[in-house]
Amino acid sequence: MAASLSEELVWELAHRLVAPPGELARRGVLVGPGDDCAILALPAGEAVALTTDCMVEGVHFKLSSGTTTLADVGYKIAARSLSDLAACGALPHSILVTLGLPAGASPHEVEEFMAGLSEALREGECLLVGGDVHRAPHWTTCSTALGTLPAKPWLRSALTPGMVLYISGPLGLAEVGIALLTGKLSPGDLPGKLAGLALSRINRPRPRLDLVKALGGQATPAAIDLSDSLSRCLIQLAEASGVEVEVYAERIPAHPDALPVLAELAGMGEGELSPQERAALLLASSEDYELLLGLTEEDAKKVAPEALGLIPIGRVRTKSASAPPKVVLVSEQGEEELAPTGYQHF
Amino acid sequence: MAASLSEELVWELAHRLVAPPGELARRGVLVGPGDDCAILALPAGEAVALTTDCMVEGVHFKLSSGTTTLADVGYKIAARSLSDLAACGALPHSILVTLGLPAGASPHEVEEFMAGLSEALREGECLLVGGDVHRAPHWTTCSTALGTLPAKPWLRSALTPGMVLYISGPLGLAEVGIALLTGKLSPGDLPGKLAGLALSRINRPRPRLDLVKALGGQATPAAIDLSDSLSRCLIQLAEASGVEVEVYAERIPAHPDALPVLAELAGMGEGELSPQERAALLLASSEDYELLLGLTEEDAKKVAPEALGLIPIGRVRTKSASAPPKVVLVSEQGEEELAPTGYQHF
Repeated sequence: MAASLSEELVWELAHRLVAPPGELARRGVLVGPGDDCAILALPAGEAVALTTDCMVEGVHFKLSSGTTTLADVGYKIAARSLSDLAACGALPHSILVTLGLPAGASPHEVEEFMAGLSEALREGECLLVGGDVHRAPHWTTCSTALGTLPAKPWLRSALTPGMVLYISGPLGLAEVGIALLTGKLSPGDLPGKLAGLALSRINRPRPRLDLVKALGGQATPAAIDLSDSLSRCLIQLAEASGVEVEVYAERIPAHPDALPVLAELAGMGEGELSPQERAALLLASSEDYELLLGLTEEDAKKVAPEALGLIPIGRVRTKSASAPPKVVLVSEQGEEELAPTGYQHF
Repeated sequence: MAASLSEELVWELAHRLVAPPGELARRGVLVGPGDDCAILALPAGEAVALTTDCMVEGVHFKLSSGTTTLADVGYKIAARSLSDLAACGALPHSILVTLGLPAGASPHEVEEFMAGLSEALREGECLLVGGDVHRAPHWTTCSTALGTLPAKPWLRSALTPGMVLYISGPLGLAEVGIALLTGKLSPGDLPGKLAGLALSRINRPRPRLDLVKALGGQATPAAIDLSDSLSRCLIQLAEASGVEVEVYAERIPAHPDALPVLAELAGMGEGELSPQERAALLLASSEDYELLLGLTEEDAKKVAPEALGLIPIGRVRTKSASAPPKVVLVSEQGEEELAPTGYQHF
């Protein structure tokens, strides 16, 4: 019954996610959800970061397949924005979330969405301060996250010659998850716990806020989060900075169990992967939500990147000012300019 | 052709709305659109207001009817959020806008949306600092606006006994617009320029930011914007403040040309409207985006509300602490407790 899900009930469910008044006050939230706006008193002298994302059923997720739940959607809409904050060196402060409900949506489904959202906000220490509930033809959700910057922002445009390029973790697991979501693979096709791990990776990405805390104040990397494929993100980073980047094919870290699955999906046969094949698979892998970071040698000495789990995969070259920005893949076979590969979101 | 509308092209069209670097810098935008987040250095010591809204084709607007254009949608998605800022006594600083594009959307249509958005942002002196472009089954757009508060916020919860309740302009024109959008009326049914005025009112609401500038610093009203019907907004205000409000039926201002049209639509016959009928029509009128304000007598003396075009329509009564909040309509017929009427958005 349509009448069973009133706007009041949705707000009541959402209000369970609102922190207690003392916690809101402590973090400068003068007015939380319920008025025309949220009102925040932000830490004086700190810059703020703002980012927004949307997800629509049928485009960004499919509930009917049974591999994604509304709790996953609630988790991911926040996690995607928090990952953007991490990519700018910001720590989550607050978030506004909109929810478009199709006819027939039930209170239980809204509760499920809220439970996933709640989990992401708790993990990210992020306060729900506002939102909008509306009718929509399909489940639709958008988030806008506000982060505070304890130090200088980490920008895509900050790569400079001599910087070493790091990646914060192995790639490929989310791409296996995408294959499960799109029906190219069934969970039964995969050994052991791999299907569960891959679905968790794609449905519940973990923003690398731990790196903001670990590096914060000590280093100011150039950075981007790996929501798109590695090749697209490398190119975006190089273009934003106007630099030439070299990436060492064999250094790109792979999730060991994901790689053979991706190879099989790509029809790369039974035998050992060539270094080129291996790199091609990883460069086309999307949505691992790791960070791609550039550090000056000086900053690298200060923070000991390897101790933080950062894996060096390349370096920014010196180029003439008139040469166009590009990314060069370096392997035993020589060098080739990188083209964008992997899923294009738009 | 789907290929004719790339993500790059949408971003290029959106970037035309981005203020020049000098203007961004002057207003504290350290990083505008193009990175993972926008980075802002906000005025020290000022609180900020945040609000978010979404609109989806088929729910909030219908392009097929020919009475709403994509330029109107671009205008309104920003205007709705700026009206929320006005309702909190905030002035627009920046905005993030998401745009979900259906298959077959053309570059020209995106340009049209951007043109309307641009107009609302220029009028509101609001900077586009970020957004998200994605595929969607229907045209979908969300905005998140950030405003700065030159003085104390105007809250729904700030009504206190003795305050006089004002409305910032006459009601009913947007409701005629809704009748045109939903096909209950045709433009040809209406005299003179009324159809054009009514469509302009519903498609391009004007946030009352002028009142924030005029009152700012001198007074701290309780406030809400009239996006819902007047009856619903009065009840929301009374409940948020925990007070009892009396509203004088005959004082509610009507747009003189709209009122007879609404009466005919409601089947109220040919003759003179009774005061009760007149009040019922206005209390059910939505989306005029005027402000409903409560001022203490002291604040009213300072700001001369009538000179600002504010029309007194009621007063906050003294009630016992245990009595529930309510709104009482006072007319020559006596008193009656107000029930929510008019369109329910959810």
